[in-house]
Amino acid sequence: MDLFKGKGVVYTPVKDVDLGPYSTEFYLQANVKAPRMTGILVKIFTHLLECPILGTLLLFILKGNNLIHQLITNAELEEPPLFVPLHDFEDIKEKEVKCLDPFLSSPEKVELAIDCLPISSEETLDGTNPSFCRWTIMDYSKAYHSGDITPSLIAERLIAAIDESTKPPLQMGFFIHYNADDILKQATESTLRYQRGEPISVLDGVPVAIKDEIDCLPYPTTGGTTWMHKERPCEDDACCVKRLRSCGAILVGKTNMHELGSGTSGINPHYGPTRNPYGTNKIAGGSSSGSASVVSAGLCPVALGVDGGGSVRMPAALCGVVGLKPTFARIPHDGVLPLNWTVGMVGILAGTVEDALIVYAAISGEIPYHQPSGILTKINLPLLSLTKSISHIKLAKYGKWFDDCSNDVRVCCSKTLHKLQDHYNWKIIDVTIPEIEAMRLAHYITIGSECSTALDSFKEKNFAELGWDVRVAQSIYGAFSGLEYLKAQRMRNRQLKFHKKIFAEADVIVSPTTGVTAYPIQDDALQTGELDYVNGAALVRYSIAGNFLGLPAVTVPVGYDRLGLPIGLQFIGRPWSEATLIHMAFAMQAICMSDYRKPELYYDLLRR
Amino acid sequence: MDLFKGKGVVYTPVKDVDLGPYSTEFYLQANVKAPRMTGILVKIFTHLLECPILGTLLLFILKGNNLIHQLITNAELEEPPLFVPLHDFEDIKEKEVKCLDPFLSSPEKVELAIDCLPISSEETLDGTNPSFCRWTIMDYSKAYHSGDITPSLIAERLIAAIDESTKPPLQMGFFIHYNADDILKQATESTLRYQRGEPISVLDGVPVAIKDEIDCLPYPTTGGTTWMHKERPCEDDACCVKRLRSCGAILVGKTNMHELGSGTSGINPHYGPTRNPYGTNKIAGGSSSGSASVVSAGLCPVALGVDGGGSVRMPAALCGVVGLKPTFARIPHDGVLPLNWTVGMVGILAGTVEDALIVYAAISGEIPYHQPSGILTKINLPLLSLTKSISHIKLAKYGKWFDDCSNDVRVCCSKTLHKLQDHYNWKIIDVTIPEIEAMRLAHYITIGSECSTALDSFKEKNFAELGWDVRVAQSIYGAFSGLEYLKAQRMRNRQLKFHKKIFAEADVIVSPTTGVTAYPIQDDALQTGELDYVNGAALVRYSIAGNFLGLPAVTVPVGYDRLGLPIGLQFIGRPWSEATLIHMAFAMQAICMSDYRKPELYYDLLRR
Repeated sequence: MDLFKGKGVVYTPVKDVDLGPYSTEFYLQANVKAPRMTGILVKIFTHLLECPILGTLLLFILKGNNLIHQLITNAELEEPPLFVPLHDFEDIKEKEVKCLDPFLSSPEKVELAIDCLPISSEETLDGTNPSFCRWTIMDYSKAYHSGDITPSLIAERLIAAIDESTKPPLQMGFFIHYNADDILKQATESTLRYQRGEPISVLDGVPVAIKDEIDCLPYPTTGGTTWMHKERPCEDDACCVKRLRSCGAILVGKTNMHELGSGTSGINPHYGPTRNPYGTNKIAGGSSSGSASVVSAGLCPVALGVDGGGSVRMPAALCGVVGLKPTFARIPHDGVLPLNWTVGMVGILAGTVEDALIVYAAISGEIPYHQPSGILTKINLPLLSLTKSISHIKLAKYGKWFDDCSNDVRVCCSKTLHKLQDHYNWKIIDVTIPEIEAMRLAHYITIGSECSTALDSFKEKNFAELGWDVRVAQSIYGAFSGLEYLKAQRMRNRQLKFHKKIFAEADVIVSPTTGVTAYPIQDDALQTGELDYVNGAALVRYSIAGNFLGLPAVTVPVGYDRLGLPIGLQFIGRPWSEATLIHMAFAMQAICMSDYRKPELYYDLLRR
Repeated sequence: MDLFKGKGVVYTPVKDVDLGPYSTEFYLQANVKAPRMTGILVKIFTHLLECPILGTLLLFILKGNNLIHQLITNAELEEPPLFVPLHDFEDIKEKEVKCLDPFLSSPEKVELAIDCLPISSEETLDGTNPSFCRWTIMDYSKAYHSGDITPSLIAERLIAAIDESTKPPLQMGFFIHYNADDILKQATESTLRYQRGEPISVLDGVPVAIKDEIDCLPYPTTGGTTWMHKERPCEDDACCVKRLRSCGAILVGKTNMHELGSGTSGINPHYGPTRNPYGTNKIAGGSSSGSASVVSAGLCPVALGVDGGGSVRMPAALCGVVGLKPTFARIPHDGVLPLNWTVGMVGILAGTVEDALIVYAAISGEIPYHQPSGILTKINLPLLSLTKSISHIKLAKYGKWFDDCSNDVRVCCSKTLHKLQDHYNWKIIDVTIPEIEAMRLAHYITIGSECSTALDSFKEKNFAELGWDVRVAQSIYGAFSGLEYLKAQRMRNRQLKFHKKIFAEADVIVSPTTGVTAYPIQDDALQTGELDYVNGAALVRYSIAGNFLGLPAVTVPVGYDRLGLPIGLQFIGRPWSEATLIHMAFAMQAICMSDYRKPELYYDLLRR
């Protein structure tokens, strides 16, 4: 691309772009031109942006400064738009994979998933015991089966833990709503099932938390706001929640989130900032902040989130847990707050890869997405992951991008890559992924325009109640033209072509999950939120392809920075290649888990 | 819908909308608030619209006055967006249908299509001879086979006719480019094939004209402009043209069109207005004006057009020929000028339904559209259309909409409907199609935003060379926000739901093709074009569902107004139901053709 020809970039035809390691494609670092703001400054800025004429002018300047005009609005490219990243189902040749009928019941799918688990996580690790490992679904199931521990006991411990963590001095900001009576009721029913010897599945009695963007009875769905549930009452479980409930899981409440998913810090002015169990003065990341945090703190082995721009993977990485965002349309979207239509997907946050796999099996499968072309796909599970059995893996790495992160993240992720090469003989293929910053902007225009449209009817009545930083985000979201939206969709098509070429050579793309680790929650951000687009851009740096192109991706904790804050490594896969990703995540977990550390705040619910 | 609640309409959930004849849904007539302008007024208006701030203000007022804010921008509806009207291929139960493998060669497809023709058009008509009927492809083929007439002779007659019609005093504005040498060369090759007894197909030696929006060697593709071919050189035949060429058809040149497809009159300031053979001081309609006109005048039995907002069907109706717009993605779009991505489709203009069928068979079939989800569909042809064999047809009619046209059109179309009922025992089902005007606006926003984006890179350098009316259109096209584009896509989903419900009860929707017949070309419009959104809205009134929802549609000439100008009746079908539509078109042609009149200007190329 030629940055300097006229006003807009003239993009080179895809066929002429070199994706090899010595490509002359320029790596453009995120060029964020917006100062960090909190407190009164955010309020002033919000009011300026909301002025009729001055606001329009300011937004024009902001867009120009951030290269949107140059890279998107006035850009020239030949691709037609790709509106929805709905991929044809290809029967890709994955190794060691079991395929499930998408129409099986969830308990049946879970049953089959169990056969795919490594025999025991501990034993895969060269015989050494991990220093710290969160309790898994199987641990719960075994404990309940043994009869020592009942779901009711766990429920009591859980409620006590939530109560403690929610109140001062901790004020972790885990949940927006939870209901002790409802939790106890579900636990009692589960306990009775075990007593009768009739648990529904291994998930029976296992606590699971749900992001407050997903419908789950008996709770309202606030989306992190103070009003959404009044405008849009929650009348049923979302499809994915129904499936978990049908397996016997105990749904323990609605986790905190960045308001309307419109931010990455997880600082919510109405329900408090979600705090990071590895450092309670640090952010948990967002927008699925509470879901990452409760899993990290040991309250649940698994939680559900929604990932529209890294919103599952970023907090997972920052809180030291596993995050899985499946292929677009793999998990039914019914009952999820419609904040966008083409980038958001339900994702899974789990303490271990094992648990991500089980829940992936439980909630995946048909119910076509809201497109007329619903696609029927088999659910692919990695078979009996003796992790060493999966070899000949090729990892695509774009060095300049991979290294565009904090020193600690870079060192830790590079070290892990070397371990993966040594341990499993996986190969690194050096590649160039062009126009990553342009893709970030195109994704921003897309999610912004869609969010603004989805929320339009609430604007007049309710937007004054939004947090200040989200009001700013919504002002920017509403500022894009039809042309800009369409240009962004053309960029989506273009990027998909690049990624397809890379996937012709490599199985996955590897990158850090975030460019930085959890940063401090500053007092002045508590009421107004903060505008920190520099940290924001560093957080989402590696997330975009997963959403904009609908590709599956997984993050696994691989180490800690010098402050002891978790670092994640990410694999991005071909469409529908979840089995390969989970396989690889098992492998990565196996070589990293001996170094896993317990968070500052941890609830050992399964203690005997 | 409630027009008066707040600023935006709150649309009733689809399930609660009554589509029956006694529905309380309000029929909103097109509320066009824009005076007719030509000459100096258009120039002044153009300059005002192109002013940075005043233009924005003017556009805002225009949008408001035309109910765009009320019906789209601020509207509340629950549907998610539907971006591309790409329908799943359903094996709909059509009667008397032959299905072709989409991968057959074009000559093979044509061969099979011949078996589907009525034994002889004349004989279907109760034994009476039609007073006027254009020569058909089969007539050409028989004449060539008999040896009396050769393709070379036809080419010579054709070139003489084009030469005459192009120059004063006629100046019909048929073609933008044609090349006598190239026509003669193709004709000589065809003649030699007949002499060797080896014609490729019944299309061998048959003259076919191509709208100048479709690539066809050796011609530039101007799109009706003076510059497009310089920016985007034509390097190959479009896929549909390749297919015709592979059948031996003689490609006789590039037909005139409304510049950039951005208007319905067919008045092109650079290449002259296309005149209507039924009244040479009248418009031919647009944007495929030349393609309709050459078929009407007998220069070719068939021509190709492109239909993004009725652009094939409207000029077909106004020029008294058949117009067929197949289902979205039925005909490959490769090599068509990309003026939009989700509404435009190659369509066929033909003197008779027979010829539309043959060319439909020749150019349909795979090469997936530019979406990742290419769909493989069989090509459906109506089998041996003894037209009376198709009975039990149910026609959905929305009376208020059907009647929203000139008196002559209404009387003629109603009379034809009665004949169809009497003759074939087809049933009329009275229905209500809600929100038709809102659909027209949503389609306008869609085609406008897409056209503006597609042409964006040419704007700065070339737009000053555009005709004045097209500059105005492009100013409006560029004025829509991302939110408006997305709301329009939500309306698209909503309308598809209504149409699906109607198609659950009826086989087709019936309507006039246009609300008015061809109107006069006024002298003051020749240089500047005209802004006549009132007539424009009347012309496109019945076209939108075909484009916005990707439905197939066909128009057949059914009579004349008091000035002798043609009137068309339209059937809109279910996705992929072309066979039914063609069946019905045969039936309609059979009962109307005894009244067919010869146009004022007609070239009898096959005369002996």
